[in-house]
Amino acid sequence: MFIQFITTGGTIDKIYFDALSQFEVGESQVNHILTEGLVEFDYEIVPLLQKDSLELTDEDRRKLHDYIANENGTRFVVTHGTDTMPETAEALAGLDGKTIVLTGALTPARFKTTDAIFNVGMAVAAAQTAAPGVYIAMNGQIFSAGRVRKNRAENRFEDLP
Amino acid sequence: MFIQFITTGGTIDKIYFDALSQFEVGESQVNHILTEGLVEFDYEIVPLLQKDSLELTDEDRRKLHDYIANENGTRFVVTHGTDTMPETAEALAGLDGKTIVLTGALTPARFKTTDAIFNVGMAVAAAQTAAPGVYIAMNGQIFSAGRVRKNRAENRFEDLP
Amino acid sequence: MFIQFITTGGTIDKIYFDALSQFEVGESQVNHILTEGLVEFDYEIVPLLQKDSLELTDEDRRKLHDYIANENGTRFVVTHGTDTMPETAEALAGLDGKTIVLTGALTPARFKTTDAIFNVGMAVAAAQTAAPGVYIAMNGQIFSAGRVRKNRAENRFEDLP
Amino acid sequence: MFIQFITTGGTIDKIYFDALSQFEVGESQVNHILTEGLVEFDYEIVPLLQKDSLELTDEDRRKLHDYIANENGTRFVVTHGTDTMPETAEALAGLDGKTIVLTGALTPARFKTTDAIFNVGMAVAAAQTAAPGVYIAMNGQIFSAGRVRKNRAENRFEDLP
Repeated sequence: MFIQFITTGGTIDKIYFDALSQFEVGESQVNHILTEGLVEFDYEIVPLLQKDSLELTDEDRRKLHDYIANENGTRFVVTHGTDTMPETAEALAGLDGKTIVLTGALTPARFKTTDAIFNVGMAVAAAQTAAPGVYIAMNGQIFSAGRVRKNRAENRFEDLP
Repeated sequence: MFIQFITTGGTIDKIYFDALSQFEVGESQVNHILTEGLVEFDYEIVPLLQKDSLELTDEDRRKLHDYIANENGTRFVVTHGTDTMPETAEALAGLDGKTIVLTGALTPARFKTTDAIFNVGMAVAAAQTAAPGVYIAMNGQIFSAGRVRKNRAENRFEDLP
Repeated sequence: MFIQFITTGGTIDKIYFDALSQFEVGESQVNHILTEGLVEFDYEIVPLLQKDSLELTDEDRRKLHDYIANENGTRFVVTHGTDTMPETAEALAGLDGKTIVLTGALTPARFKTTDAIFNVGMAVAAAQTAAPGVYIAMNGQIFSAGRVRKNRAENRFEDLP
Repeated sequence: MFIQFITTGGTIDKIYFDALSQFEVGESQVNHILTEGLVEFDYEIVPLLQKDSLELTDEDRRKLHDYIANENGTRFVVTHGTDTMPETAEALAGLDGKTIVLTGALTPARFKTTDAIFNVGMAVAAAQTAAPGVYIAMNGQIFSAGRVRKNRAENRFEDLP
């Protein structure tokens, strides 16, 4: 089994800079999470973008789409900021024969308490067991692209009404 | 979406007693892990057994089988010791229409570094996305019951040769 | 033994708000740290201020000074932002018969990896064993007020040259 | 400033072996704790013994005593199992001009929740600020050798009555 992880930035990889009292997107935590998860399959981590998802452009999404389209692999996990994760999921529709799972975190992976590890675990399982298509793994659920939104007031993902 | 979690003991729930310098199976960590994972689906946690998996008997496995058979739910995550997880998975075969995922941990969930959170995340995703059947979620992989073993020398799960 | 903990804000208590992608000062972590440290002495936690230390005013420092002056206790631990910790330490000089230890953190206590727990441990010990006076406990050292500065470029505390 | 850390084993360094379901004393966690504490002083870590403190012999204690006696340094932190920490503290009495602080943990340092970091922080501060002598840093307190015992029923250190 082989999974490609593509990192694009977002809260999951945020780090803290004291001088500024601000978080900025840091080096990806995916490798650390996979090590802690004791995974034994083959994988590759591709750091494609390093942005807050609010700053992602159409061109960024095209770049991600084309990257996946050009790969021979069929299982992809994309770490992504939460604010526009549903938009990116829709932009990846139509890539035949590939299972693509987007995930991220509502709290940075560097925190003591974070949803990042659980979410990457979900994404890894869905990339193996779900039919080809685009999914979002957040809040304990595997949502299909186009049927999910982020409820910002409640800070969680939910089915589109 | 509704998932039933059945806990049976094992390393995942081990705690440390100083006086004895030994681990014993403690209260289940599943609820804590789901809270950290910010899950938003409905669930129930059923503490069925509290044993090292080496001590599980045929009767214990029958009890687990019958418990699941008698429930109306279709998604189950069973936390279990690793040493005999493959045996228990096989003992649950034949429960039609139910997706049952066994998981556990090679290092206790109470440790700083543990595979428990990642594994429960995988199990939660597989319980939603995998076809009815019995699976084991360990070492980053979703194995089918009957096709997996624990390699004790290497301390990991692998496909049966 | 009795120690009074006075919290004033700073990085040690920072929390993360996703929407803003910014840290803000949150509820004090001191109680959590003392619980994890299994402390058995009597203590009280007084949340006096909740600010970044760059925003502390002369009036804030006077308030802190007067609070300590009016208490009968003799052992104080003050959690404080790091940027102006040396200034506040000097502003507390001259309070006879009291051992006052300022500490904080270069990384928030809510992070997986943080100096907060170690630093509060140091401060608690120094409040018991150091002669009356004002001290700063950071980077593994107990500095005397007036003889220490924060080297911002290196992000650490050091002796004044 | 220079501190020598001497490790002798005990709960603080316990690790978990799945096959045996038992903890054994592992590699010392002191270096990891000092790194997390962002300490900036010079130090050396000497792994002298690796035992449960119930198994320490008179000869072990003599070895520790002689090691410290023969060093030129004046500040020592000794990590030690908790069960016989008071006995070892008394065995180190009479080493003139040296501040020796024994510490350890009631829960292994490899756990998510552990008193190890807080305790080593206390010991580091006491090694700097306490008068020459032998001390125990546990449960938030700096006890003098000869005036402290472990209350095993309550699993904490306390003043001798």
